[in-house]
Amino acid sequence: MLRIPFADVASTLSTILVGVGFDSSRAEPCARLFAETTRDGIYSHGIERFPRFLETIRNRTVDVHAAPRRIHELGAIERWDGRRGPGNLNAWSSMARAIELGRQHGIGCVALSNTNHWMRGGTYGWQAADAGFIGVCWTNTLANLPPWGASAPALGNNPLIIAVPRPAGHVILDMAMSQFSYGALEAFRRKGQLLPVDGGFDSAGNLTRDPATIEGSQRPLPIGYWKGSGLAMMLDMVAALLSGGLATHQIPLEPAKESGLSQVFLTFDLSRMQPSEESAHAADAIVDSVLAGNPGAVRYPGQQVLKTRAENLALGLPVREELWNELRRV
Amino acid sequence: MLRIPFADVASTLSTILVGVGFDSSRAEPCARLFAETTRDGIYSHGIERFPRFLETIRNRTVDVHAAPRRIHELGAIERWDGRRGPGNLNAWSSMARAIELGRQHGIGCVALSNTNHWMRGGTYGWQAADAGFIGVCWTNTLANLPPWGASAPALGNNPLIIAVPRPAGHVILDMAMSQFSYGALEAFRRKGQLLPVDGGFDSAGNLTRDPATIEGSQRPLPIGYWKGSGLAMMLDMVAALLSGGLATHQIPLEPAKESGLSQVFLTFDLSRMQPSEESAHAADAIVDSVLAGNPGAVRYPGQQVLKTRAENLALGLPVREELWNELRRV
Repeated sequence: MLRIPFADVASTLSTILVGVGFDSSRAEPCARLFAETTRDGIYSHGIERFPRFLETIRNRTVDVHAAPRRIHELGAIERWDGRRGPGNLNAWSSMARAIELGRQHGIGCVALSNTNHWMRGGTYGWQAADAGFIGVCWTNTLANLPPWGASAPALGNNPLIIAVPRPAGHVILDMAMSQFSYGALEAFRRKGQLLPVDGGFDSAGNLTRDPATIEGSQRPLPIGYWKGSGLAMMLDMVAALLSGGLATHQIPLEPAKESGLSQVFLTFDLSRMQPSEESAHAADAIVDSVLAGNPGAVRYPGQQVLKTRAENLALGLPVREELWNELRRV
Repeated sequence: MLRIPFADVASTLSTILVGVGFDSSRAEPCARLFAETTRDGIYSHGIERFPRFLETIRNRTVDVHAAPRRIHELGAIERWDGRRGPGNLNAWSSMARAIELGRQHGIGCVALSNTNHWMRGGTYGWQAADAGFIGVCWTNTLANLPPWGASAPALGNNPLIIAVPRPAGHVILDMAMSQFSYGALEAFRRKGQLLPVDGGFDSAGNLTRDPATIEGSQRPLPIGYWKGSGLAMMLDMVAALLSGGLATHQIPLEPAKESGLSQVFLTFDLSRMQPSEESAHAADAIVDSVLAGNPGAVRYPGQQVLKTRAENLALGLPVREELWNELRRV
């Protein structure tokens, strides 16, 4: 594993994006979001994911020049058309607009249709929290999860992000509705490990901890069985209805062509609800109460990020040598 | 099991409430919400729960005369103080206000502090959906769920409701963050049944399907293990911070004195986002896609309610004879 300075990773990715047609003013933030994801330790969705992103540009799933366009305003909520632009830029500008709306109305919402994979969802939670806002956002996805009671995928795993700002470190939940992603299943299989808990069904419908069996059956488990199945369905419905965009059943099943996603970005202007000191104190007390008596064993969502970020900024971002060489050749 | 006409149940409960001090104008809706919960098949939180509600009036946890008071306005979001009034009336008026705010601003939010148990959370989802709104609401609770990695409760099970209106039958998710409630564990134990999936830990930290073991260890399982644990924590944080009210760690641990809860009510005015026919068609298509190929085996959230409601209205509400006699003696 190489250790490459953050700035070198960001500029390398940016140069590649200009090479595939991005305006330089958009290549820079798009590349930075990929580098920041690796910086924060979400390796599966950072630079490791970049070659797949390039593939979606080449196969015209992503239009590098498209930016979201507002198609409906209704006070504190707006509907935007993502026009199949780069998913991370679309999501970033949507959360930025939801923050502006939140500043005006106390809460703000952008419903975005016709967009592409936003890469790391937590990015937009950090964005809201860094601005002092509570942020909630989610996306639908292609069908990759069987509903409870079925054996074939008909639900997306629809990642949900909830972010609460806190001076001592934001609390940021970033979770999909499947117990383990396909990426996580692959990682366990490569290490020759069983999953720590049941992760899906075998083809006969028995629960299993064997990652390869679940990869084969394509039957990962929703979190909480029937409960996560229901929650995944609701997130898809709300995103598709508010945005007027596609629902999971309308999204192409091929991962490289997954497009036309629907997303929701919601903000709450916490800073104007109560004095920020009082709010920070209350947030700290909640975090402390949950960790109490179990230091190390219990973690709050997002707890590892600041430490990982500091380490990766100090040592350089960890990048596989083979991947780095491949990117330098593009 | 007796079958008592809906109107008789509602008027009997209302008369009892007047007897314990309610103004008759508030006794009627409070009693009706209990009767409607039994009508809809959520038996644990309807008339079965009424004796416990009376106990919280007698022990002064609930102030029968208190109504919520607005303490902060910020455009589309408002903060209200529930003043320890009856939890179902407080929640109903908060969702009604969130609907008004949604009508004005496209989205609306009421953050309610200092309230009491709202009984069946789904009630307020149906309320929003009946008004044509997407509704989202949740409550925090006393600590009844160990965080992932801990053995003692420090999280609430914090029920979350998401409601989507649909002419053919609203889609309403009403789920707590524990895999099984203590009421559900008791029901399985009484029937001598094991849980269908792991529901918690024994006192040695092993996962188990035995309901009595979990009742003994007080270690029910969050949905999705670490994921539901994180989600429960976020719901508590957002509710406490937005309302300025108590968080789970500040709520009395004794169920009969559980009070000072924080709740959030959020609405989206779907009817003004797109033509209602288009919206209904999109909602139907999503429901159909999830149920496709698995009729009977896959259900959508809330699917059973309309059928149960019709049956209970036709036959009378099912009420245990012992309970009914007890209530008639109050």
